Amino acid sequence: MGQYHHILLAADFNAESAQVEQRAAALRDTFGASLSIIHVMEPISIAYGGEFPVDLGDLHKELEKQAQTQLRELGQKLNVPQERQFLEVGITEKEILRVAEENGVDLIVLGSHGRHGLALLLGSTANAVLHHANIDVLAVRLNKDSK
Amino acid sequence: MGQYHHILLAADFNAESAQVEQRAAALRDTFGASLSIIHVMEPISIAYGGEFPVDLGDLHKELEKQAQTQLRELGQKLNVPQERQFLEVGITEKEILRVAEENGVDLIVLGSHGRHGLALLLGSTANAVLHHANIDVLAVRLNKDSK
Repeated sequence: MGQYHHILLAADFNAESAQVEQRAAALRDTFGASLSIIHVMEPISIAYGGEFPVDLGDLHKELEKQAQTQLRELGQKLNVPQERQFLEVGITEKEILRVAEENGVDLIVLGSHGRHGLALLLGSTANAVLHHANIDVLAVRLNKDSK
Repeated sequence: MGQYHHILLAADFNAESAQVEQRAAALRDTFGASLSIIHVMEPISIAYGGEFPVDLGDLHKELEKQAQTQLRELGQKLNVPQERQFLEVGITEKEILRVAEENGVDLIVLGSHGRHGLALLLGSTANAVLHHANIDVLAVRLNKDSK
């Protein structure tokens, strides 16, 4: 039980994410495991205020295109093939969990902001993932928030 | 940054803890890291009801003796020398954090009960550790609670 075989990196493409990405890749190398990457786009809220008319369909497509590009670039950087790159739309924790379960993931790696603590920042994500899945979670501290 | 050098196992000697213990030892072996063990005894509450007089000092000494024995046994099992076995009395998260920082720990390994989720079960522990320390935390799922 000591080894992990399939690691899922939950990527959010923030400036601070490089630490988490590097950590996940290093763990992949150390364990000789597979590495997958997931990025979840939460659905665009309708609650924009409505001052200006916006075609949310177009906006979503544009955001999805950007995310796809970032995911591809990250995949290349970490040497993760396209079939292990998951761009999903939905509730973050549900999508992470679904992809993890469907792909036999045994370790989820995600970033954690110290200022808020794991519970507050990851909140529903960590809760839901740990509530439903029999999967370990590694919370990597993001330096930017360490004080 | 890929490797961990000093792992701290937060042990609570429950029946389900074996998974967490084995995981921590396996990670130690995989990374070629040092492994320390901490067990924290929370101070005995005075709020016993008071129906029967109890010498809390004696009770505490007895509990401490039991914990010391369990810690020694676990240390032998995982091949952790006595100088890396920490039996502390205090607030769990504070003691974990203090020992981690004083000993240059870079990964804390602890058990997580799925039924309640990380946030609820670890609650103050995970929060406090992640809030204050620049240390990664691996939450190992305990099978007994997985549903």
